[in-house]
Amino acid sequence: MAQDSQEAAVVRPVADILEQRNAGNSSGYILPKLHSMKEQNPNLALLDIGCGPGTISSTLAKIIPDGHVTGIDKSPDIIPRARDLAEESGVKNIEFQQGDAYKLPFADGAFDITICHQMLTYLKAPWDALSEMIRVTKVGGIIAAREGDLTSECVWPELPGLVKFHKLAGDLIKGGGGTDKGGRQLLSWALKAGVKREMITVSHSTWSYSTPKEKQIWSVALIERVQGSQLRGLGLKLGLTTGDLDEIVRHWTEWAERDDASIAMMHGEIIIRR
Amino acid sequence: MAQDSQEAAVVRPVADILEQRNAGNSSGYILPKLHSMKEQNPNLALLDIGCGPGTISSTLAKIIPDGHVTGIDKSPDIIPRARDLAEESGVKNIEFQQGDAYKLPFADGAFDITICHQMLTYLKAPWDALSEMIRVTKVGGIIAAREGDLTSECVWPELPGLVKFHKLAGDLIKGGGGTDKGGRQLLSWALKAGVKREMITVSHSTWSYSTPKEKQIWSVALIERVQGSQLRGLGLKLGLTTGDLDEIVRHWTEWAERDDASIAMMHGEIIIRR
Repeated sequence: MAQDSQEAAVVRPVADILEQRNAGNSSGYILPKLHSMKEQNPNLALLDIGCGPGTISSTLAKIIPDGHVTGIDKSPDIIPRARDLAEESGVKNIEFQQGDAYKLPFADGAFDITICHQMLTYLKAPWDALSEMIRVTKVGGIIAAREGDLTSECVWPELPGLVKFHKLAGDLIKGGGGTDKGGRQLLSWALKAGVKREMITVSHSTWSYSTPKEKQIWSVALIERVQGSQLRGLGLKLGLTTGDLDEIVRHWTEWAERDDASIAMMHGEIIIRR
Repeated sequence: MAQDSQEAAVVRPVADILEQRNAGNSSGYILPKLHSMKEQNPNLALLDIGCGPGTISSTLAKIIPDGHVTGIDKSPDIIPRARDLAEESGVKNIEFQQGDAYKLPFADGAFDITICHQMLTYLKAPWDALSEMIRVTKVGGIIAAREGDLTSECVWPELPGLVKFHKLAGDLIKGGGGTDKGGRQLLSWALKAGVKREMITVSHSTWSYSTPKEKQIWSVALIERVQGSQLRGLGLKLGLTTGDLDEIVRHWTEWAERDDASIAMMHGEIIIRR
């Protein structure tokens, strides 16, 4: 099944938020297994699908200096940025290329570890993408996925502009054929991809922003996004007024400045033993 | 402010779920600080407010064998059970007593560490209880609280009986004067109790159940609760029919038996440096 144009229209979070991601804050659930696999075989091959600016990929590459990481993303525009960021951080054992999660350009069993982060939730047939991840992974390897449940988001204070933004974010994912309840469905998607239950480990973890610096990064990035023509157009199309969009901007600004403000979201995680 | 009879009517989760709690699954956010404080002073005094069956208190007591733990709960009925469980697990440096979170029966600065878990969210004035926690804690000590955000709960599959149960659980907390959005408000409550922002650290974590054994414990406990006369009466009073209550029981049973089922909830956490 191909990723169609409707899916491509989904507005992903902007690059500067994505660039805050790393192995520590986004891949904690696979690190114990990664370290034990590395002890057995230092030359691990790892594939990161939907890598975006590649900050998770490159921090994982640092953990396996004698291994090799491949990052792919369906958007060719992000690839040069991923290459630049990896080079800036001195990571050599990595490559990035454009690729389709439904039709991975790799042979069966090409990787020891195949991961994705915040990718399956945007797809119409995530179980098909999981099947592909399984196909390109060696027997004895692992497939790992971490996806947010947007509906679990806890924001405080609940300013009206933030509530409207939260609804808009969910409508955009659903409008693109994805789901705002991805984390909780990972297990069911893996079963639908044909994996036996006993080969799957489930866990959950969170991200949260509450310090002045974290709130500043989050707020500035979201405001840029809301003021951008693409999201603005989609918001108006989905029933928001220009007044609503202005209120969203005003309330993210106020939120970042308030001492009592925080935001957190829960993620579901699965590790499949191949 | 006293805990009134309306608050007392809140149906707390049943004992066998509460007895699954321990320092590892419920107090991870304070363990690094607890260990560093213990290195400075092995004779730490720790107070756990709303301790219920005391399994968090007693596992913390094991971590500070030369220290002392006091567990208090407003319900005198749970105290003998807490004492029995601590004795069964061989913990000696602990005592349990009945006590009111709004009026702690302890002198100013009596404890090095004062904690609570899933307690403030049930109160009408959680900031008053936090003020009391701060009062009984020594300067240089810490106050720590962990509270769930019921609205962050992610259950799968979303069987209608589970959706009805989730709504009932929220209605019960709110009916008792509490909130189903406690975790995200901890920071604001601490500020309202007069704490400076720079003395507060915020974090989030989750609990989740997905293995057959975990689901069995959860499902059996909730079904017993729904079949009990107290919750049944409250459910009917809040607009559910006997058919709804039967459906809730049927769907928790089905949920526990399904391979694709899981449940998770996010918790807010704060540590206040006194």
